[in-house]
Amino acid sequence: MKSKRRDLAMIVSDCPASAAGVFTTNRVKAAPVKISRRHLKDGRAQAIVATSGNANACTGQEGDMAAERVARTLAGELGIKETDVLVSATGVIGEPYPIDTVVRGIEENVRHLSKRRVAGAMAANAIMTTDTFQKEDYTSFRLNGSRVNLAGIAKGSGMIHPNMATMMAFLACDADIEPELLQEALSEATARSFNMISVDGDTSTNDMVLILSNGLAGNRRITGKGPDYSRFRKHLDRLCVNLAKSIVSDGEGATKFIEYRVVNACSEEDARAVLRTVSNSNLVKTALFGRDPNWGRIIAAVGRSGAELDPDKVDLFIGSKRFIPVAREGKYVLFNKKQLKQMMKSARLKILIDLNGGDKEAVGWGSDFSYEYVRINAEYTT
Amino acid sequence: MKSKRRDLAMIVSDCPASAAGVFTTNRVKAAPVKISRRHLKDGRAQAIVATSGNANACTGQEGDMAAERVARTLAGELGIKETDVLVSATGVIGEPYPIDTVVRGIEENVRHLSKRRVAGAMAANAIMTTDTFQKEDYTSFRLNGSRVNLAGIAKGSGMIHPNMATMMAFLACDADIEPELLQEALSEATARSFNMISVDGDTSTNDMVLILSNGLAGNRRITGKGPDYSRFRKHLDRLCVNLAKSIVSDGEGATKFIEYRVVNACSEEDARAVLRTVSNSNLVKTALFGRDPNWGRIIAAVGRSGAELDPDKVDLFIGSKRFIPVAREGKYVLFNKKQLKQMMKSARLKILIDLNGGDKEAVGWGSDFSYEYVRINAEYTT
Repeated sequence: MKSKRRDLAMIVSDCPASAAGVFTTNRVKAAPVKISRRHLKDGRAQAIVATSGNANACTGQEGDMAAERVARTLAGELGIKETDVLVSATGVIGEPYPIDTVVRGIEENVRHLSKRRVAGAMAANAIMTTDTFQKEDYTSFRLNGSRVNLAGIAKGSGMIHPNMATMMAFLACDADIEPELLQEALSEATARSFNMISVDGDTSTNDMVLILSNGLAGNRRITGKGPDYSRFRKHLDRLCVNLAKSIVSDGEGATKFIEYRVVNACSEEDARAVLRTVSNSNLVKTALFGRDPNWGRIIAAVGRSGAELDPDKVDLFIGSKRFIPVAREGKYVLFNKKQLKQMMKSARLKILIDLNGGDKEAVGWGSDFSYEYVRINAEYTT
Repeated sequence: MKSKRRDLAMIVSDCPASAAGVFTTNRVKAAPVKISRRHLKDGRAQAIVATSGNANACTGQEGDMAAERVARTLAGELGIKETDVLVSATGVIGEPYPIDTVVRGIEENVRHLSKRRVAGAMAANAIMTTDTFQKEDYTSFRLNGSRVNLAGIAKGSGMIHPNMATMMAFLACDADIEPELLQEALSEATARSFNMISVDGDTSTNDMVLILSNGLAGNRRITGKGPDYSRFRKHLDRLCVNLAKSIVSDGEGATKFIEYRVVNACSEEDARAVLRTVSNSNLVKTALFGRDPNWGRIIAAVGRSGAELDPDKVDLFIGSKRFIPVAREGKYVLFNKKQLKQMMKSARLKILIDLNGGDKEAVGWGSDFSYEYVRINAEYTT
């Protein structure tokens, strides 16, 4: 682990909590991903331990044993069940995990666990790798008369991270909710937030989003999809979107923050496919960096997204405060190029793609692609 | 069209030829793609006309009519059928196609059609956009006692082209072959060559590969998949691979040429999926540019490729003249990092991924990702 910086975060609930997780779809899964999935099978957990610097990925059986030892160590210190500890790691792939250092770190720091607000910030700081700022958000809301607290921290950044492109988010809540519903809520919130940001198209071996919700708010337990669940969902979605946006904002190489909106798609999957293909396109990203109103690159990306669509119906708008139409029904419109170029100097841009096919939509966020991206990713050496 | 440079190429056969084409899979198809597909339905054509500077894409009905007029003009000049003319274009998307200039260009230049070898080079030159050198190849071989000639030109470059990322190749042959077999041969050759190079992951609205084969070699007509067909396939494959490699070499921003090989995959599709995901990964490309032996990025790309594979069986090798194993059975091996770093300074690298699953394989070629890529793609303005 690196010296002189925080690289260990522990999140502990006062009592066993409902727990849920969303994990990387990469077939190459880091050891912490494997063990956390296993420990989540009963929908219950009480602690999360995250380390940064080494991914514990491609480390074989030794790596699996190391991840287990991380869980066992924290469980022992806290006097809780080993299977109630979730484990996470981010950092270099394919180097031996420094398990002895991590064990010592847990043993030495477990007594510093704190309920103070600053503890959350320190945890957010500890999971950073090359992030330039810590990402945290907090909200509270009422559920049936009880005040519920929901907090989250995240790491990951626009598209800049050397070999640690990992996206991680850890959420803590005191609502009382069935684990199955918590899982469903987290999966859907992730689909609309963390999965809708354009990192660099690379899915890490270590990506994970975890939530603990321990019921100490004292609300009437959420056991079905009534108004309480909807309210919970709304706040969870919003918090995840905020964290996701802050990840996009942290592209060291990024000079722009772009909101993409795809409307009137035949299905939500189609809308998301179009959004992801456009926001991940290198040609679109470099055009945005160059402030080039080169919308042909956008429409070409729409076309190769694999989504069901009629190219002759696609409308395209680019804007900042207001939108300028650049294509109607798949064909150029004679817009004011000078005005659009001027608008593209803005640090915040919006791109609206109307497929005029169905009634589904998707919203997502991305950054541009600058020299800095190449520098940071090329100059990093193991 | 741009002044002072060639931007019109015409390839004409002395007689109607068997003809075949492979076209972009992008749903947004340029007008020339639509008309050429239509004109190829009968498996016959006699001429190809290609222009550079304007893609004639997203140009609506006007664009369709312009593409038709291009075909009609050349057909009129040559006294051949309009449906025997194939049309191609590359350049800016979403601007009105300068049809009058093109028509004038055809009328004025049709008398310069030449059988001299240099004519091929000039045609290769005329289809360039930001290509830095012209791409052509020629071979001849015997089919049942007759000497057959096969020539090809291509345009497209590593991953650098402003808004003209289009890949085009035009092949001319004098073998006598059934159109259906010619189509099958061209489709398979394209799959193993042009489709296995890492451009920038963006599929253009205008990509196309066309072949005319007019039978003047006098060989016994190829009507089935016997030895003659195999021989024809072998030479066609080789020519397409050569042209594809020259496209990769023409990355202005590229500093390296990488040969990827995926072996022991469960299916050819799996092998190709792994190859494409790795060779298109921005993180892999920037690591290669930075000479960073950061193989975790490669294995993470393997894992997210969607291919059927067991991560615990994957072996990974990086090399130039010889290979250095960096991972065995999905786990790091303790290799000599200094030696690998030294090797990575080489301009030509090889990456071998052994999935140890089945017996299928794929070979492909890619370049790295440098500052130049961003500069060229950002500084271009419409």
